[in-house]
Amino acid sequence: MTEILPSYVRGEWWTPETSAEASAAEVHDASTGELVARVSTEGLDLGAALEYARTVGQGSLGELTFHQRAVLLKQMALALTERKDELYAVSSRTGATKQDSWVDVDGGIGVLFTYSGKGRRELPNAKVYVDGAVENLSKDGSFLGRHIYTRLPGVAVQINAFNFPVWGSLEKFAPAFLAGVPTLVKPATPTGYLTEAYVRILVESGLLPDGSLQIVSGSVPDLFDHLRLGDLVAFTGSASTAERLRAHPAVQTGGVRFTVETDSINASVLGTDAVAGTPEFDAYVKQLVVEMTSKAGQKCTAIRRAIVPEASVDAVIDAVRARIAERVVVGDPRAEGVTMGPLASLTQRDEVLRQVGKLEQAGGELVIGSTDAPAVMRTDGTTGVASDGAFVSPMLLRFADASSPALHEVEAFGPVASVVGYTSLAEAAALVARGGGSLVTSVATHDPEVAVALASGIAAYNGRVLFLDRDDARSSTGHGSPLPNLVHGGPGRAGGGEELGGIRAVLHHMQRTAVQGSPEMLTALTGVWHAGAAARPEGEHPFRKSLAELRIGDQVVSGSRTVSLEDIEAFAEFTGDTFYAHMDEEAAAANPFFPGRVAHGYLLVSWAAGLFVDAAPGPVLANYGLENLRFITPVSPGDSVRVELTAKQISPRETDEYGEVRWDAVLKNQRDELVATYDVLTLVAKTREAQPA
Amino acid sequence: MTEILPSYVRGEWWTPETSAEASAAEVHDASTGELVARVSTEGLDLGAALEYARTVGQGSLGELTFHQRAVLLKQMALALTERKDELYAVSSRTGATKQDSWVDVDGGIGVLFTYSGKGRRELPNAKVYVDGAVENLSKDGSFLGRHIYTRLPGVAVQINAFNFPVWGSLEKFAPAFLAGVPTLVKPATPTGYLTEAYVRILVESGLLPDGSLQIVSGSVPDLFDHLRLGDLVAFTGSASTAERLRAHPAVQTGGVRFTVETDSINASVLGTDAVAGTPEFDAYVKQLVVEMTSKAGQKCTAIRRAIVPEASVDAVIDAVRARIAERVVVGDPRAEGVTMGPLASLTQRDEVLRQVGKLEQAGGELVIGSTDAPAVMRTDGTTGVASDGAFVSPMLLRFADASSPALHEVEAFGPVASVVGYTSLAEAAALVARGGGSLVTSVATHDPEVAVALASGIAAYNGRVLFLDRDDARSSTGHGSPLPNLVHGGPGRAGGGEELGGIRAVLHHMQRTAVQGSPEMLTALTGVWHAGAAARPEGEHPFRKSLAELRIGDQVVSGSRTVSLEDIEAFAEFTGDTFYAHMDEEAAAANPFFPGRVAHGYLLVSWAAGLFVDAAPGPVLANYGLENLRFITPVSPGDSVRVELTAKQISPRETDEYGEVRWDAVLKNQRDELVATYDVLTLVAKTREAQPA
Repeated sequence: MTEILPSYVRGEWWTPETSAEASAAEVHDASTGELVARVSTEGLDLGAALEYARTVGQGSLGELTFHQRAVLLKQMALALTERKDELYAVSSRTGATKQDSWVDVDGGIGVLFTYSGKGRRELPNAKVYVDGAVENLSKDGSFLGRHIYTRLPGVAVQINAFNFPVWGSLEKFAPAFLAGVPTLVKPATPTGYLTEAYVRILVESGLLPDGSLQIVSGSVPDLFDHLRLGDLVAFTGSASTAERLRAHPAVQTGGVRFTVETDSINASVLGTDAVAGTPEFDAYVKQLVVEMTSKAGQKCTAIRRAIVPEASVDAVIDAVRARIAERVVVGDPRAEGVTMGPLASLTQRDEVLRQVGKLEQAGGELVIGSTDAPAVMRTDGTTGVASDGAFVSPMLLRFADASSPALHEVEAFGPVASVVGYTSLAEAAALVARGGGSLVTSVATHDPEVAVALASGIAAYNGRVLFLDRDDARSSTGHGSPLPNLVHGGPGRAGGGEELGGIRAVLHHMQRTAVQGSPEMLTALTGVWHAGAAARPEGEHPFRKSLAELRIGDQVVSGSRTVSLEDIEAFAEFTGDTFYAHMDEEAAAANPFFPGRVAHGYLLVSWAAGLFVDAAPGPVLANYGLENLRFITPVSPGDSVRVELTAKQISPRETDEYGEVRWDAVLKNQRDELVATYDVLTLVAKTREAQPA
Repeated sequence: MTEILPSYVRGEWWTPETSAEASAAEVHDASTGELVARVSTEGLDLGAALEYARTVGQGSLGELTFHQRAVLLKQMALALTERKDELYAVSSRTGATKQDSWVDVDGGIGVLFTYSGKGRRELPNAKVYVDGAVENLSKDGSFLGRHIYTRLPGVAVQINAFNFPVWGSLEKFAPAFLAGVPTLVKPATPTGYLTEAYVRILVESGLLPDGSLQIVSGSVPDLFDHLRLGDLVAFTGSASTAERLRAHPAVQTGGVRFTVETDSINASVLGTDAVAGTPEFDAYVKQLVVEMTSKAGQKCTAIRRAIVPEASVDAVIDAVRARIAERVVVGDPRAEGVTMGPLASLTQRDEVLRQVGKLEQAGGELVIGSTDAPAVMRTDGTTGVASDGAFVSPMLLRFADASSPALHEVEAFGPVASVVGYTSLAEAAALVARGGGSLVTSVATHDPEVAVALASGIAAYNGRVLFLDRDDARSSTGHGSPLPNLVHGGPGRAGGGEELGGIRAVLHHMQRTAVQGSPEMLTALTGVWHAGAAARPEGEHPFRKSLAELRIGDQVVSGSRTVSLEDIEAFAEFTGDTFYAHMDEEAAAANPFFPGRVAHGYLLVSWAAGLFVDAAPGPVLANYGLENLRFITPVSPGDSVRVELTAKQISPRETDEYGEVRWDAVLKNQRDELVATYDVLTLVAKTREAQPA
């Protein structure tokens, strides 16, 4: 008997007692109908698993900084890469072609790499994320406000759909892990054995902090009864399931965050300029066929509605038909040459055919493909109807009536799309909106005016909008591909949630809190020095301190230096910057911002560096940049300037012998007026030993 | 007969037919019981009002940029300021003291001023908001991603609580207006006449774009039946009402955004260091009394739980008792010397007394105040029990058992708080969390370690945390005061919503959408030039063009200039920046980032200015700053540099004769390697006439 698929909970693999075997669900190979796995959670203590995450998982992740977690994500990505052939082998049983598996497996691993990189580039090497600028709440600067993000104190429950067992899980896991929130994965039963396979690799890698990742293989009907404030659920699946889960008191009144991503009736619009013969027309048709057949159309982002100028409807249908005939081979994904596999299960096949029936009843005319079981290629190279496989042919319906509700509401979750004509851009935008909120809409146009007109009408109804034209047709990642750097999710019918989008998804696992207090307190709370907090200008020059020795608040207060007209002229001559405000007294005085000739801003910043620098070799390795420079009070000949440079933020790198130090630079004149403010960015060795000899 | 309070819908004032008068609700003066207003919406066509907002309101606001809307907000603030005495007179009828009215009326006007300022400083003078950095999605730079925010296409329905009829409404209106989303206000019946009064002033000011603000004075039981995707509801009120509204299909499945702010069981923690005699102890007690009595405790942000070290419980009670005796005078707010008015209505009074009864039953001992009707000061200067007024006395309960559920769950929405002891910081944090999510917690401590320990345990349970100590006690805006620049709202029991927080609340009225396309398309969609889009290096130097003439993509491509060792030495001598990487070949070569001696970064940036500048007087008035400077490839003696400067973003100011131009600066060497990238910020005259002669 095929073994029951294990769960990984509370730090160990778990399977039900053998008595549960009778009631276990069976999972079959999508192409052959062969039994692949049996699934049951009978007797699993879900509440204990969740509590394990909240205690052990929160504890182990809480010891790590964002960067330390990011480094682990990269190591996990490498561990999965090393064993990805195992995942490909399992993946083909779900009906995925090699290309489909690449999207799922490599796509999922890619999310880990992206989050690892973004975590180290865009988050501090700390546990708190500071959001936005300081808000000064008092005249004397003694009371400040700031926003911080801290991780949610609970568990991230991730409920995944059957279509992307690896990517769909990893795209939720990566940001949760980076935020420091432990994950409990609940994969969809039909393909959960593939999710289990990748989790097993990660467990065996030894990289997972205790309690940071658990998987429950099978149904968990009472899941929401165990959730509470501080937990969050990220759900991908059907709108009806989402509706039922959302109605649970844990969400309605218990404060459990509930993020939903449901498949939507996504549109692809052919611009009025993109007539047959243009590169945009070709790119549009090519993309439409890819979206219909990739993953056999089982993508929540697939194109369901092709919205094209009335005059181009026939041309689009002909071109799609020709391309399908030329390119699409339906069959067992393990057979050579197959480009479209079966649906995930016979249940899915029946459901898709039922929805196609609804579309036909509502006026959709099947102009490409048929609802009959298609002839398919088998692994032995023969072709014929496969009665045990969940195969359907690619189908395109044509709607004469663009206002048909079914066109905008009924989804056949397979290789099925509808085409409909429009007569004005306003109508096209209105048709897109009729979908009631989508994950993505694509637009094929080379005319920026067409793009802007459509965008203003459709952007608010979409989580993502892709513009396809001759310039990006080759490099486009495609209508159906969510990317880790861009948000995935959409309003209304698409579920109203938001995933991915780089660091945005990490923050969705954290709570934003406004903090108010003195500069000293905000410095302590954020790890970033705030003007007004204690500074230490005495003692050794901070450029002589390694990261191990440097503390925020360490400071240089320079002597002052007087600017002469000769200095200004020398600088103008040296740089070639003879802007009249520096060179022509009369013209400068006529300028609304200057009293007369003034020093170059770059002269002041250059002098400031001369004033604060410690020139000898030491831990400070380089000035790699500068941010937020503002020139506030002009400096006239005879004025003097001095600089205060204070260590503001210290970020050691996890994988280098140095790190970043951000310095707060303030230039003042002899009247104590602010001349300029900016941040100086430097690289500093971790230890004196690590600095160049 | 007192007239029925009008509504302002579809561009005109509306009252029900006189036949509705019999069924109209009556509203009474909080202190005297006198009839103030009658309220009915019988016969009001709510669906038409909402549709008016979605069509006329969206249309008129859609013609304006963020800055134009921001300017209108300031003018509205001025119009309200001019007539605020009228509002104060009406406000006293709600039971508000002069101080209470100041918080409500001036606080509300302050929100308009803040949003006007922030709108112009932090949003572009455009209609689309660009979020985050460019994401390069292809190797050749031909396919980019970016996130934009566009306004929601519907109506912002704002359901307000009775306690802040002006501020509570304006804090929702300002960000909606700035986002370009029309508002329909539904005030609470007991004090809606004050909301109507401010709306009337705005209508009479003539400043409101058509359809941008409507008010419905009275109940709207079928409101949610009229809502749909693109609309949003911002609700402030009771958790039970929120729960009922949230369950509506418009929210559950219709995609209507629903933001909730409910009063919560907020805590104020006295730090272990803040023993009696410290400035923090005094500040803590003072703040507690203010929060108990301000607005007679009818604030969703008021302190309900005073969590203090076990050893300090008695001292806190004694100090609070003494301060109340010394400072608090209960009475008609129109009477001289009164510092605490009645509750808003007799219904509220009865409700508060009922909740106090619950707290007593659960073990709370009433140690200050009583549930008997207090003697109050009348306008004629006499003192006695006022049977028609909704008065209660300030009450403090003491809980011996910190684990009592009622302590953390029962709210008496009046001048009522409970005090409880804790024995460790971990216990104090756990008690705060027992509130199930709060709008705000305050902490009195002068010890950063205490602050950090508490923050890490409580931040995720709060929308705002205030740290009070000797440094900010005088300047603190107080536990109970939401500020326009900081987020207001909190997780769980507090409703899970987020309002205010400056631009954050504007974005809550917009949809974030990822857009993908070629640099040309993203430039068209965002109004910001993207590298790779068309640029125009030919023709007149862009520094000679006014804002009216300049276009994004206008460009200077400079000649190149070779750096010599003499240049580096001259610059080092001139600036004093003799850092070894510029001066010492051997030491520089030992540095991991430099091949040997290299040019100063500031030398390169200064030279770049000399290379791109057009020196004669013209429309470019000043370089006011620089952003995102990164030094990428070091420049050695013998290398040459050149610069490309491209107009990236053009932001004319609404109220000045100039505006900001952001330029994209790219420095390259003779091998076409990137040397440095940054943005140059300049002020440019709107027209050639506006430039200095």
